[in-house]
Amino acid sequence: MSLQSISPSAAALRTDGARLWQSLMDLARIGATLKGGVCRIALTDLDGQGRDLFVRWAQEAGCSIRVDAIGNIFARRAGADDSLPPVMTGSHIDTQPTGGKFDGNYGVLAGLEVLRTLDAAGVRTRAPLEVAVWTNEEGSRFVPVMMGSGVFCGAFTLEHALDQRDAQGVSVGEALAQIGYAGAAGPAPAVGAYFEAHIEQGPVLENHGRVIGVVTAALGQRWYDVSVQGMEAHAGPTPMELRRDALLAASELVLEINRIATERRPHARSTVGTIEVFPNSRNVIPGRARFSVDLRAPDDAQLLDMDAALRTACARVAAERGLQIDIEQVVYFPPQPFMPQLTEAVRANAEDLGYSHMDVVSGAGHDAVYLARVAPAAMIFVPCADGISHNEVESAEPAHLEAGCNVLLRAMLAAAGVAP
Amino acid sequence: MSLQSISPSAAALRTDGARLWQSLMDLARIGATLKGGVCRIALTDLDGQGRDLFVRWAQEAGCSIRVDAIGNIFARRAGADDSLPPVMTGSHIDTQPTGGKFDGNYGVLAGLEVLRTLDAAGVRTRAPLEVAVWTNEEGSRFVPVMMGSGVFCGAFTLEHALDQRDAQGVSVGEALAQIGYAGAAGPAPAVGAYFEAHIEQGPVLENHGRVIGVVTAALGQRWYDVSVQGMEAHAGPTPMELRRDALLAASELVLEINRIATERRPHARSTVGTIEVFPNSRNVIPGRARFSVDLRAPDDAQLLDMDAALRTACARVAAERGLQIDIEQVVYFPPQPFMPQLTEAVRANAEDLGYSHMDVVSGAGHDAVYLARVAPAAMIFVPCADGISHNEVESAEPAHLEAGCNVLLRAMLAAAGVAP
Repeated sequence: MSLQSISPSAAALRTDGARLWQSLMDLARIGATLKGGVCRIALTDLDGQGRDLFVRWAQEAGCSIRVDAIGNIFARRAGADDSLPPVMTGSHIDTQPTGGKFDGNYGVLAGLEVLRTLDAAGVRTRAPLEVAVWTNEEGSRFVPVMMGSGVFCGAFTLEHALDQRDAQGVSVGEALAQIGYAGAAGPAPAVGAYFEAHIEQGPVLENHGRVIGVVTAALGQRWYDVSVQGMEAHAGPTPMELRRDALLAASELVLEINRIATERRPHARSTVGTIEVFPNSRNVIPGRARFSVDLRAPDDAQLLDMDAALRTACARVAAERGLQIDIEQVVYFPPQPFMPQLTEAVRANAEDLGYSHMDVVSGAGHDAVYLARVAPAAMIFVPCADGISHNEVESAEPAHLEAGCNVLLRAMLAAAGVAP
Repeated sequence: MSLQSISPSAAALRTDGARLWQSLMDLARIGATLKGGVCRIALTDLDGQGRDLFVRWAQEAGCSIRVDAIGNIFARRAGADDSLPPVMTGSHIDTQPTGGKFDGNYGVLAGLEVLRTLDAAGVRTRAPLEVAVWTNEEGSRFVPVMMGSGVFCGAFTLEHALDQRDAQGVSVGEALAQIGYAGAAGPAPAVGAYFEAHIEQGPVLENHGRVIGVVTAALGQRWYDVSVQGMEAHAGPTPMELRRDALLAASELVLEINRIATERRPHARSTVGTIEVFPNSRNVIPGRARFSVDLRAPDDAQLLDMDAALRTACARVAAERGLQIDIEQVVYFPPQPFMPQLTEAVRANAEDLGYSHMDVVSGAGHDAVYLARVAPAAMIFVPCADGISHNEVESAEPAHLEAGCNVLLRAMLAAAGVAP
């Protein structure tokens, strides 16, 4: 991947933040909730209406539309050399049941705004540009999550994805046909470069007062179930020194697990999100406890080091307290670094445009994480209020969204080249 | 309370361990479970059958029977001076739904065995002796627990107890009438002294290899609900230093609460038996946690000191971690010391009889704890296997049960005096 320097006239281009904001608000009316959020679950009629609106907008901006067999939409703006692989951007427009206006939608409409800006300015790129709307990123109705990008990148097969069913027994294939987005099967075309703009979904940019997050990697994840077997006993008659209290051991491990990531800052994460004790009675010493562990790190060496620290802590607590502790790994997502040349393009353009910025990692999954398996890829984060997403109160500043969109425009021009 | 020294001939008396064991096994057939336990829930037909068997045995041993308005049964063996307040022993024969053969039953049948022994030897006591069967100690069907002894000792009123209803809407009063144990109302008679033999329901005697536990006090109890309010956030995008993790705070408190009693050994106890986190999702940092606290101590000063330590720990963790922590006390049972002269009689007689013994506290509630409010009282513990009770596998050694019964015989004779 080599990036082109762009001409002064191209460098003078700016996206229209007001137009971007208006499109976000217009799309948010489809599935709008009373509390100001959006409920537009994948492959529902509302998702279909949202897709139709995007397609109309893209066609009005001079794009051709292609839909693949898993329902991903590609709005294409021809390049001067249309045989080159496209420089692509995109995200998703499906939401959580109590989702917001920005998660996913921003990435799609920022891409559209880039095309509109080029269209208005009459700028032609060397390579073609595409804006992708990936099917079912959220996974609220159908699993696996990040379904459209996962099929596109070969993480799982088209057939597997089409066969998945929702709680009512409707398959992905049936739901796609129902809303008119079951496209033709065929091999995924090559992608020259992929950028994705997204709200951060975390508090780091806001906390540091920065506008642009240069996303260097997506954290790898290892999830576990840990079970602790101690001895149930009456709380009254059992002296402290004769107890084998499963919750006490679990509590020591919760603190230890927190330490595993705290000692590996800034990027490592460790979370115990669920816990249960048995028999869960006020005056009975818990005989058994179960809890989940979620470890995340930007590279596999660190993630394995954290895995080892978890196992060491469990073995130590089990030995010291005379309990049995079992660990089962239930999920593994590998860490995914983004392409350094592309992240540098994001960083340099944010700097050129005078936006405060910082390097960050993505703790959550995104379509770009799959795309990075098959193409040079990078992400651009902008702040969201209080780091809150997957929530109807999700909120972002128009100026920040515009800034991210300007960085996206510049980065895509650099990757695609501007035709003379 | 002054204790009599007993004559050499009275001191030579021994209870019949085999007869005691046989009676325990015979009673255990009423409500026997497949796993070797007993399910004889208070005021059921099976409880009625158990009561009938006890009454027949007591009458065969020459006792008169009195039933009070809450269904407590008193089997009375007249004294040489029958105007003296009786020296009483007893316990309960109702069980937990998956209860054992010994909890409660041992105290009642050890009392019966004392009377049988005196009857066989033709020994007359100065004061009358009584064996009480207290109604509904377990509280499995009707609350409050320790209902019969509670009414007898004025912890709550007869009317309140009679009005309590089970899950099917049957009242205590109706259930008593149904099984024929609704006796006449009237003021509770004075009790000269009260002894209760019981399996320990804990592991201390077994752990120390002792046969007799000289129970010096019943622990006071303070129970609490603690709630922790932090901030729910996504596990992936939220760096460690920006978290307000409610489970992490709760876990620190679980360890701290354990320390509160561990630093106040041997008698203090502290237990967190229940915990819940919200939203209890693998990849969400818990925003809220709730857990129970059970603190126990042998005197109010220590219990208050532990209460203060709990509040200090919660305040410190709340301040250090930027969370809100609320504490609500939901139960208070005052500590109940037993009468030193009576516990000394238990200790001295165990020593005389050559049984290994140690001073212990009762961590659980017993009818004797209420009796100690209105009469000189003491308890005699014997070991149970692995400290397990309220369980069908509850088990005790015949030799230990006999030893406790011999101590009970001696202590009752010392309290009642032997008639010439």
